[in-house]
Amino acid sequence: MQLTVFIMAGGSGERFWPLSTREKPKQLLKLVDKERSLIRMTVDRVLPIVPAERIFIGTNAIQAKGIAEELPMLPIENIIIEPQFKDTAAAIGFGSVVIGEKYPDATMVVLASDHLIKNEENFCKRILTAAEVAEDRGAIVTLGIKPSRPETGYGYLETEECYIGEPTPVVRFWEKPNLQRAESYVASGRYLWNSGMFIFNIATMNQAFETYLPKHAALLTQIAKLGDAKRNYSDAKLNDLFSKFEKISIDFGIMEKFHNTMVIPVDFGWNDIGSFPALDEVFEKTEQGSVVQGSRVVEVNSSDNIVLGMSGKVIATLGVSDLVIVDTKDSLLVCSKAEAQNIKKILEQLNK
Amino acid sequence: MQLTVFIMAGGSGERFWPLSTREKPKQLLKLVDKERSLIRMTVDRVLPIVPAERIFIGTNAIQAKGIAEELPMLPIENIIIEPQFKDTAAAIGFGSVVIGEKYPDATMVVLASDHLIKNEENFCKRILTAAEVAEDRGAIVTLGIKPSRPETGYGYLETEECYIGEPTPVVRFWEKPNLQRAESYVASGRYLWNSGMFIFNIATMNQAFETYLPKHAALLTQIAKLGDAKRNYSDAKLNDLFSKFEKISIDFGIMEKFHNTMVIPVDFGWNDIGSFPALDEVFEKTEQGSVVQGSRVVEVNSSDNIVLGMSGKVIATLGVSDLVIVDTKDSLLVCSKAEAQNIKKILEQLNK
Repeated sequence: MQLTVFIMAGGSGERFWPLSTREKPKQLLKLVDKERSLIRMTVDRVLPIVPAERIFIGTNAIQAKGIAEELPMLPIENIIIEPQFKDTAAAIGFGSVVIGEKYPDATMVVLASDHLIKNEENFCKRILTAAEVAEDRGAIVTLGIKPSRPETGYGYLETEECYIGEPTPVVRFWEKPNLQRAESYVASGRYLWNSGMFIFNIATMNQAFETYLPKHAALLTQIAKLGDAKRNYSDAKLNDLFSKFEKISIDFGIMEKFHNTMVIPVDFGWNDIGSFPALDEVFEKTEQGSVVQGSRVVEVNSSDNIVLGMSGKVIATLGVSDLVIVDTKDSLLVCSKAEAQNIKKILEQLNK
Repeated sequence: MQLTVFIMAGGSGERFWPLSTREKPKQLLKLVDKERSLIRMTVDRVLPIVPAERIFIGTNAIQAKGIAEELPMLPIENIIIEPQFKDTAAAIGFGSVVIGEKYPDATMVVLASDHLIKNEENFCKRILTAAEVAEDRGAIVTLGIKPSRPETGYGYLETEECYIGEPTPVVRFWEKPNLQRAESYVASGRYLWNSGMFIFNIATMNQAFETYLPKHAALLTQIAKLGDAKRNYSDAKLNDLFSKFEKISIDFGIMEKFHNTMVIPVDFGWNDIGSFPALDEVFEKTEQGSVVQGSRVVEVNSSDNIVLGMSGKVIATLGVSDLVIVDTKDSLLVCSKAEAQNIKKILEQLNK
């Protein structure tokens, strides 16, 4: 089996402003580990089962340089630069074209670049199981996270029955539910969080593109014929072909429709670090229940805050709770945890 | 009449941390006016009625240098440095000894260094009236602020009847009341806020010291005999005498007991800027009801905050209200307005 990894590293870096920016999005931040960025952690996590030369990154021109610097162990040509963002179906199709040139029989493991996983050994074990299922049964295999709470921020995968580590068909993909539905999903025991990690053989995916997204398939065939030009994100022909892609996600465009989408229920400790409050689950807390990183922080009559001091100054909280406070060299954010999803509204105002 | 002004400028600078420090307390901050510190505004305010050579400052060794730099128009010898802090009775007694050498028949106007007054012309008019009353009737004359709300943070002066600008005897001094009492004070129309500004002839005050604080009077007599030594805060004899002062306030030690304490009810717009939330009354507000100074501030779903950005960076608030946010080069404070009185607790922890 030619096991390969394709790490999707786009992202506009809005949800972690002011730590993150378009040039330095979440996956390039050392948000969890003092030494390693999230993307570096993602690569390190799969190195026990996949050699560096078979790990590929899908990204854009703005972020490519930062990623290359962050991942010196990867061959530079493994950093695949999309000329335009056309959602995940095009991104994965383009990735599979580039990877398929070298590894025509590759089994591709598609991963996000900015998620956190606690039990990395178990993660690798599940990936290998998924790869076998993908090979043996011609399936597209996703990893489904056993839900620990009625989260309304994730999509769900419905199954008939669901046991950790046992591959099972996906009955249906569900969009982000409201709280009531999320509670019923968790109570049923048959629903899993859609982690966005999935595994397939390139031949399986090519076939699926032809069946469900034939226009994508035709464009990908033309891109394959471009030769070296497809490695140059400013190439006019490549851009012209890319501009014709419909913007559609791989979930909606293929996986929900594919006749043989399976899921492996997993419980290796997964966190997509979707916004600042997710750090509550990552870090040890102070006696006051706060997460404190970087600066010297004094808490008086304060609790349950997330304080990230990147400028080294003293930070004092007095009589405040459930806040996110992020102090960088250039910017300061003071935000309620409940509103942390809306940081993009700040950027909209700043960009005016 | 030898009208002189004695501005008390001690203060530990705790309530405005991190803007203020022991070396740079509130009165040295340009908190209200971009060009002028509060003490400079205090001096400028009386210059129309008292020449610079008759304006004196009472302070301590730590702050004297900063004050001298801030007030180049004053003769340097007018900055009177107390060797030790022994509360206001000793401070005013010491001030009157130094001032009395040059102006033995002085009428002394005692002012705080860090208050704000809106109608400065009216203020000067009231001071002149008070000085006349002090001269003509041998009274200690205070200025009493017509209360605009049932403030529990101030002491009150009770009168028989009370009309703006009309001198009237003080019936009684009252300590900071609870809300219920404060409400009845305001409703009665006979109670005034104790502003801490008062006016007396030096001879009147000397007599009062002898009657009500005879130990202070005796120490002050000995200090008067020290000659130039009393101008050297590190002089051993001066320190020895100072160490013997009982720590007592002028209000409690003399004014409450004096047989002829009068008050002039005033309404010239007074703000003691006691803590950050007082700035709500000083500055224009944004559409969101926030006070914003210094930095570029972006407010999203936020209101009624006080944001003071001294480091020039972008500050964004998201989903927060009624906070005080102060960002300096070295420190960041995030504090609920309701707890702004407790900033000293932060300093206690920082100094541990």
